[in-house]
Amino acid sequence: MTKLHVCLTPALIPLFKVEDYIVVVIDIFRATTSICYGIGNGAEAIIPVSQVEECLAYQEIHPEYLLAAERNGEVVDGFNFGNSPFSYTKEKVSGKTVVLTTTNGTHALHLSRSAKRIIIGSFLNLTAVCNWLKDQHENVLLVCAGWKNNFNLEDTLFAGAVAEQLKNGVFRLDDAALAANDLYQLAKDDLDGYLKKTSHSERLKQLGIEKDIAFCLNVDLTTAIPVLNGERLVKLG
Amino acid sequence: MTKLHVCLTPALIPLFKVEDYIVVVIDIFRATTSICYGIGNGAEAIIPVSQVEECLAYQEIHPEYLLAAERNGEVVDGFNFGNSPFSYTKEKVSGKTVVLTTTNGTHALHLSRSAKRIIIGSFLNLTAVCNWLKDQHENVLLVCAGWKNNFNLEDTLFAGAVAEQLKNGVFRLDDAALAANDLYQLAKDDLDGYLKKTSHSERLKQLGIEKDIAFCLNVDLTTAIPVLNGERLVKLG
Repeated sequence: MTKLHVCLTPALIPLFKVEDYIVVVIDIFRATTSICYGIGNGAEAIIPVSQVEECLAYQEIHPEYLLAAERNGEVVDGFNFGNSPFSYTKEKVSGKTVVLTTTNGTHALHLSRSAKRIIIGSFLNLTAVCNWLKDQHENVLLVCAGWKNNFNLEDTLFAGAVAEQLKNGVFRLDDAALAANDLYQLAKDDLDGYLKKTSHSERLKQLGIEKDIAFCLNVDLTTAIPVLNGERLVKLG
Repeated sequence: MTKLHVCLTPALIPLFKVEDYIVVVIDIFRATTSICYGIGNGAEAIIPVSQVEECLAYQEIHPEYLLAAERNGEVVDGFNFGNSPFSYTKEKVSGKTVVLTTTNGTHALHLSRSAKRIIIGSFLNLTAVCNWLKDQHENVLLVCAGWKNNFNLEDTLFAGAVAEQLKNGVFRLDDAALAANDLYQLAKDDLDGYLKKTSHSERLKQLGIEKDIAFCLNVDLTTAIPVLNGERLVKLG
């Protein structure tokens, strides 16, 4: 049987033989949501990096690239925008390349680099991701980017949402996928309400990005699937 | 507020500043269940080791020690018994010291060794553990021993059972504790049925230890709490 496994934090990636899987990287608040939205809105490519300095290095060579970085919820001086998905509208990103600073997401991508293929998931492209995975006939590893290598609920819930769509087919779920799916079933009728009890939600509220959070829980706004090609995320097609 | 955190696998222990916590080590199938049962039944001490060879080294110095080790569900030749909790009855262990081979449990104990205190939890001593934790006014870290550093459901469910008893007091739960508690609430009316869907359960069934599994899910058979004292687990008291 084909495997559907969930890696609950990047710290657990070394336990998996990543080259045997298609990896879906998940960082719901907010990196992978912004990436899916941006690619769905016609961005030519999004390049995820972990440090502000790397962003600047790209711009030296490619002054036309847009730069996205935040520190403590504020756009970094001299950058085009922060990490809010609302920055990735058609008007702003269509036809452009964006260099995006995201610590947890980049960490997860880097550790998954030997996978058969790496795609990006979020609630915004949930069903498109699931349908594509069903067609691949490959083992699937859902990698939750977490928060500084810690487990978090929002990424796990998305993993559970994928498991919900894949579980009655050919896939065999591991314990983490079973747990994620059960949590998703508890939460699915009110994802926002369910996540309000988490510590992360408290932290994000303090950053004043509650509108972003609500947006990140929209399901199936796009059918675009970002796929890693070298160091660039581009539209799978 | 006092912290109630859950470490879902030993691979995540380095993310916690263990010296700030009382640690509860959890390895439901079957090491920590057997340890609680043995200490409850009057064993003088239980010494957890990871290798059969370490067991033998103890016996050279202390020929009176009982040795417990299994390979593939069979008692290792020359050993007194395996890892079944049914080996830890009063008749067999009262007044004795047992050297117990347990890979996952020993791994978790070793990585937790700088904790303020390390105790052993299982469904058998659930309420005793919770009552004692409530009296300590210290941060609590529930360490799931897992399976070769992987997440497993049975240890997580026990962590959720502890969270259930502690959550409405002074403790603040992290995301992993919230998730574990929600899973426990789903499973609590039929722990055995819930766990039947896991891959681990399948593996254990093949070992022919279903009776052990059912026993490991008995709640509050004992009020004994094993505590680590040097390399020995003894009765807290």
